[in-house]
Amino acid sequence: MSANRAVAYKEPGKVEVIDTDYPTFELKDGPGVNPANIGRKVPHGAIIRTVATNICGSDQHMVRGRTTAPANLVLGHEITGEVVEVGPGVEFVKVGDIVSVPFNIACGRCRNCKERKTGICLNVNPDRPGSAYGYVDMGGWVGGQAEYVLVPYADWNLLVFPDRDQALEKIMDLTMLSDIFPTGFHGAVTAGVGVGSTVYVAGAGPVGLAAATSAMLLGAAAVIVGDMNADRLAQAKSFGCETIDLSSGEIADQIEQILGVPEVDCGIDAVGFEAKGHHGGEEAPATVLNSLMDITAAGGAMGIPGLYVTGDPGGIDEAAKKGSLSLSLGTGWAKSLSFTTGQCPVMKYNRGLMMAILYERVHIGKNVNAKAISLEDAPRGYAEFDAGAATKYVLNPNGYLDAA
Amino acid sequence: MSANRAVAYKEPGKVEVIDTDYPTFELKDGPGVNPANIGRKVPHGAIIRTVATNICGSDQHMVRGRTTAPANLVLGHEITGEVVEVGPGVEFVKVGDIVSVPFNIACGRCRNCKERKTGICLNVNPDRPGSAYGYVDMGGWVGGQAEYVLVPYADWNLLVFPDRDQALEKIMDLTMLSDIFPTGFHGAVTAGVGVGSTVYVAGAGPVGLAAATSAMLLGAAAVIVGDMNADRLAQAKSFGCETIDLSSGEIADQIEQILGVPEVDCGIDAVGFEAKGHHGGEEAPATVLNSLMDITAAGGAMGIPGLYVTGDPGGIDEAAKKGSLSLSLGTGWAKSLSFTTGQCPVMKYNRGLMMAILYERVHIGKNVNAKAISLEDAPRGYAEFDAGAATKYVLNPNGYLDAA
Amino acid sequence: MSANRAVAYKEPGKVEVIDTDYPTFELKDGPGVNPANIGRKVPHGAIIRTVATNICGSDQHMVRGRTTAPANLVLGHEITGEVVEVGPGVEFVKVGDIVSVPFNIACGRCRNCKERKTGICLNVNPDRPGSAYGYVDMGGWVGGQAEYVLVPYADWNLLVFPDRDQALEKIMDLTMLSDIFPTGFHGAVTAGVGVGSTVYVAGAGPVGLAAATSAMLLGAAAVIVGDMNADRLAQAKSFGCETIDLSSGEIADQIEQILGVPEVDCGIDAVGFEAKGHHGGEEAPATVLNSLMDITAAGGAMGIPGLYVTGDPGGIDEAAKKGSLSLSLGTGWAKSLSFTTGQCPVMKYNRGLMMAILYERVHIGKNVNAKAISLEDAPRGYAEFDAGAATKYVLNPNGYLDAA
Amino acid sequence: MSANRAVAYKEPGKVEVIDTDYPTFELKDGPGVNPANIGRKVPHGAIIRTVATNICGSDQHMVRGRTTAPANLVLGHEITGEVVEVGPGVEFVKVGDIVSVPFNIACGRCRNCKERKTGICLNVNPDRPGSAYGYVDMGGWVGGQAEYVLVPYADWNLLVFPDRDQALEKIMDLTMLSDIFPTGFHGAVTAGVGVGSTVYVAGAGPVGLAAATSAMLLGAAAVIVGDMNADRLAQAKSFGCETIDLSSGEIADQIEQILGVPEVDCGIDAVGFEAKGHHGGEEAPATVLNSLMDITAAGGAMGIPGLYVTGDPGGIDEAAKKGSLSLSLGTGWAKSLSFTTGQCPVMKYNRGLMMAILYERVHIGKNVNAKAISLEDAPRGYAEFDAGAATKYVLNPNGYLDAA
Repeated sequence: MSANRAVAYKEPGKVEVIDTDYPTFELKDGPGVNPANIGRKVPHGAIIRTVATNICGSDQHMVRGRTTAPANLVLGHEITGEVVEVGPGVEFVKVGDIVSVPFNIACGRCRNCKERKTGICLNVNPDRPGSAYGYVDMGGWVGGQAEYVLVPYADWNLLVFPDRDQALEKIMDLTMLSDIFPTGFHGAVTAGVGVGSTVYVAGAGPVGLAAATSAMLLGAAAVIVGDMNADRLAQAKSFGCETIDLSSGEIADQIEQILGVPEVDCGIDAVGFEAKGHHGGEEAPATVLNSLMDITAAGGAMGIPGLYVTGDPGGIDEAAKKGSLSLSLGTGWAKSLSFTTGQCPVMKYNRGLMMAILYERVHIGKNVNAKAISLEDAPRGYAEFDAGAATKYVLNPNGYLDAA
Repeated sequence: MSANRAVAYKEPGKVEVIDTDYPTFELKDGPGVNPANIGRKVPHGAIIRTVATNICGSDQHMVRGRTTAPANLVLGHEITGEVVEVGPGVEFVKVGDIVSVPFNIACGRCRNCKERKTGICLNVNPDRPGSAYGYVDMGGWVGGQAEYVLVPYADWNLLVFPDRDQALEKIMDLTMLSDIFPTGFHGAVTAGVGVGSTVYVAGAGPVGLAAATSAMLLGAAAVIVGDMNADRLAQAKSFGCETIDLSSGEIADQIEQILGVPEVDCGIDAVGFEAKGHHGGEEAPATVLNSLMDITAAGGAMGIPGLYVTGDPGGIDEAAKKGSLSLSLGTGWAKSLSFTTGQCPVMKYNRGLMMAILYERVHIGKNVNAKAISLEDAPRGYAEFDAGAATKYVLNPNGYLDAA
Repeated sequence: MSANRAVAYKEPGKVEVIDTDYPTFELKDGPGVNPANIGRKVPHGAIIRTVATNICGSDQHMVRGRTTAPANLVLGHEITGEVVEVGPGVEFVKVGDIVSVPFNIACGRCRNCKERKTGICLNVNPDRPGSAYGYVDMGGWVGGQAEYVLVPYADWNLLVFPDRDQALEKIMDLTMLSDIFPTGFHGAVTAGVGVGSTVYVAGAGPVGLAAATSAMLLGAAAVIVGDMNADRLAQAKSFGCETIDLSSGEIADQIEQILGVPEVDCGIDAVGFEAKGHHGGEEAPATVLNSLMDITAAGGAMGIPGLYVTGDPGGIDEAAKKGSLSLSLGTGWAKSLSFTTGQCPVMKYNRGLMMAILYERVHIGKNVNAKAISLEDAPRGYAEFDAGAATKYVLNPNGYLDAA
Repeated sequence: MSANRAVAYKEPGKVEVIDTDYPTFELKDGPGVNPANIGRKVPHGAIIRTVATNICGSDQHMVRGRTTAPANLVLGHEITGEVVEVGPGVEFVKVGDIVSVPFNIACGRCRNCKERKTGICLNVNPDRPGSAYGYVDMGGWVGGQAEYVLVPYADWNLLVFPDRDQALEKIMDLTMLSDIFPTGFHGAVTAGVGVGSTVYVAGAGPVGLAAATSAMLLGAAAVIVGDMNADRLAQAKSFGCETIDLSSGEIADQIEQILGVPEVDCGIDAVGFEAKGHHGGEEAPATVLNSLMDITAAGGAMGIPGLYVTGDPGGIDEAAKKGSLSLSLGTGWAKSLSFTTGQCPVMKYNRGLMMAILYERVHIGKNVNAKAISLEDAPRGYAEFDAGAATKYVLNPNGYLDAA
């Protein structure tokens, strides 16, 4: 059996590429594996040779030491790959298929999965509904920033691309289907974006740019992206968004300059709990949600793909440490706003978004400035991304991306 | 021109029945009328002789002195009546029609009305979207706890009952169509209640009981109502709800005893910002929402018909005074919950609910323990309701209810 | 290996109870098995000891000789049972579970299943999307009017009842979850039935009664059922429906007498292609749909759970033999009607309906007049049902229903 | 009172520009005015000086003599204009506003309008729900292929463009908001088009091209348009559609060549009852619907904006004369298809589509090849359009389009 290389969290601020085991059809003990999952048989699984695996902003929460992630946890939940082995319970996915792996692991057999709520599958994480690869407190499924990774319930979870050559040709777009493109899309859909909508996206990181791309794909009239990072705003501008530099004035005023009115139909929070105050720069976890309530028009909706956590050891105060936020709900109520939170159920959207990519209706890779780097360069990718690079880093563990 | 009698707010804790003007097709100056609305012509209006007009929990916020309502403000936004005059712009509503008046005033001509969002009409309140009769900061439309009241945009706003005799016979049910039945129904609908749902309703006041009734009408399997008022809980029990006494243990535990699991599919907040802590009894404005996030299952939804305000002079601390709440949004996010706030757009629901009443599919008057009292008795009604009576008080200014 | 007894189609007008094989985890050759399915391995399957298995109107199409069903085809797609064996690929369903089997077989792994369209699963029937147990041209999965039956993809397909004793106590209701209750419910949902709707159901057979029950559960104000069979109409009346005897006058006139207007909001076709003319009694396959277009109000919707086929050897003319109908689509278009056809995707509804049964919100068994008879009595059940008995026959192959 | 010039139907095959009355705030007797509407007061109306008014395919049905339209009926229901007078009941629309007039006239006060079903308003046409300007059997509201036209219920019906100069600059796009753009969009929405869909549009006339444009705006992956008119197909190709020449082979085969599978997710009928057989060219009114059922995938939906009539004096046989079609409903049922018919409720969509135009997200004028001609040239426009020109003719009665 061949060995495996993978990106592991070592300590706050540090990741390393390590040697690790080649996966088998069993979830073995290891860093962060839930005791109740140890030894779990996975005959329904597939082993994937990774084609592309991206660094995600939510990985950064762990790397920054804002969670209880253990040392040597193998990271990575944005995985696209080639099927190299299937378990005996796999019937339709075939060796050689090029596939996208939704970041949320789902069984396809529980009530929530049957209702398409795969972000809160009841059977994969002993602690609570919902799971993901390579993530703290998510059951212990091994991460995919690696040469090889095990995907359970392969017939259910995997999205098979219809043509291998076409898939590899468009791989820098398709790799975004595992997480950020559906996540941004979910934000836009739950914010009520439709044809002719005006939209404000808080945050020009990869998820914000994916949300902005999604809003356009859904027919929005105007998509405005706000951030304090000039490079990321330039990225948003590159594909037709309007932009707002949060450090240079009130959001409402800047929206009014663009739209003629100081509000939008739809608000998307692509930042989450590590939000910074617009003027000072210290953490202010409720800033984004409160400002969205201000600038979303009465009757509007807010999609909240940005992550909020139940506990944050690095929180700025006792409330933040418990995941409590001081929200101006009165403002929201007076405006009859609605709010949708939570992990994106990737399987609800990935097939349609794949079709939009394959037929050249959207260029998500370009929009988020996807850049392939080697697996061994992952630490550098983490560092640059954390420093605010307007880049989505795509690891290339097996050389498939050399041509892309 | 005949005179008019009406219930007016005098000072904190005090309402009085006063002599006042008979309405005309113009909004004249008076207590609480927005300057920009003074002198507004209402040729599209109808004058209504009140058949039934209910005391509402949201009136109590004003009477308790928790708002900036001016003295002599005529109260009342839950109005059912007989049309006695129509303006020249009214084409379809006829004198003699028995009608239900949605508490939210809407123009039927703005973007929001065209989108059925009549709770946030853009043309009736100069301050902001949304309006109501007899309510502070809602534009100044005169209240309907009176013998006569003016309804603007009558063809749009009024729901005409198909048969006069039938309407008067079922009037103690139909009077709930002006506010609490649709409001409770909106809470249930936005909480995602459907056939087979399990539902928890926080609060057994009239809106809570209406929400519970609505959940049943929508086919919910189990409806659980929580409160600390034994009489109101008994009322909930009377039509098939399960009940929880909040003072005798954790909600989740009590739910588990009823359902076998410590959570429900759908949560409804029928309390709002004047919530009290479950164990102590002091005000704790975030209590209801935080406890609903705890006991609503992952993937569920929360309907929030309970009122949250942007400013509350009587708030327990600075945050509460500004309408800010300390919410465990991290918990909600981890469970992928969604939240819908705001005034119920009554016109979206009142016709269907009327049909359900007329065909005897629901007995909302009985469920909320509707009780007719004279207009002159209104001060007693306010006082008893404020003291926690398990009763919905229906004023009878013109004797129509004597037979009911 | 123990033997098995089952109801088989022998020739037009004739069914027999025969000895047959006990199921294994493989689909073996037999009457009506699609060649491409012969030898198909079913490690994901469960073997069910039948608790209750109902005779369905769609079985009658085969028994009447209106299809190409081969002799000795084992019938039965309405199955409730106890799990007695599970294959190695089954992870969550356990031996001893009491389960409902959706009549449409689905893989839980194809695009359509992932979109909840389990009535048109792509992987179970080599001929076309969609499959069912014991049905001609549906892939050859063996029917369940038998002591034992194999259910493929058990973790996906089976609905496990939460408590064995409770399930057996309510079994005459729960047995309707395998087909007619969800099928009628789908008809009501796709006809747009909601709180306060007026509804007309064409046909008072079991599916029609289930649709009427569903409309009530959804909060319809008035539910009107039309048929020419007095016993079946009496059954509809027994649970609160209004009824129309089609032989005694125009439907629109009779609706007007009931509702005051000659039309309803929602129309449901619970008859299908074997419809008879209202006045004469010969087959007139387009009668139901054309009359529904007449009496459904502009803007309404029609749910069409009644079966229409692509070929009918017994059709009254060449068009009918090909499944073509002469429809007054111009009438439908002028009224902006919409139409939903097809098999009910049972899994979308069965859990919620189960909850409504378990919490005593609905009594579907009583409403359709469910009656248990022995497996050996099946031929009599088929004959009586075909003769128009207002009864839903439930076979009792293993004695579980003796107590019910 | 100033005079008016308008396009009138004279006899089959012939339209003429005639002198006619300048409108007043009353519906006077005239060709085609319903007796019950004669003398109807319209204080809620606005008089519009026409900026652009388009010739529509549904006008052609009248001009070809396929209806009972009387001589001298003033045609035209696709109207954009400048408000020059408002009645006393108009409150928000102002003289000088540039406005789009939805082709379906609606009162804004009936149940259907309140439910956004403005295509079947109950109060404007004494014969049945639904009305339009300048159309036979629609109540008699005078057509707008004229210098001036009266719009009733102006505050409800009119869509006011936010800026006059911007509106006139984009007028060749905005003029499509009165009918074909929303109509095509409604076809796409009701066919279930979403991000990633594959779509087939039957018919490359203006509505078909608008439906194809709409499908793209909604994010469809692939949009295929079928017709037998090479120029119109070239027009479809010009903005990115795939095309099928119906005279050169089976639709399913041609779809398979494009998509790799012989079916699409969504089918749109933009042809209607005057459909011609694909190979012969004689009328075959059921051809389009039957072929759409063939090539729409199981679980798909069909949007049917193409007009089907209740009576057609020129129908090819007795069934067609009554509006009956021989439909393969069995095929549709086996595939669980759904169908939506009827007039587009323009007000549901026009604001969003306006926003998409104003923000340059769509170029509908270019896509349908809009061409301005003078009012006096209308007869030539009708003739060229009837001959199959791949052009949308826009009349320019008052010179506003000279700059465009």
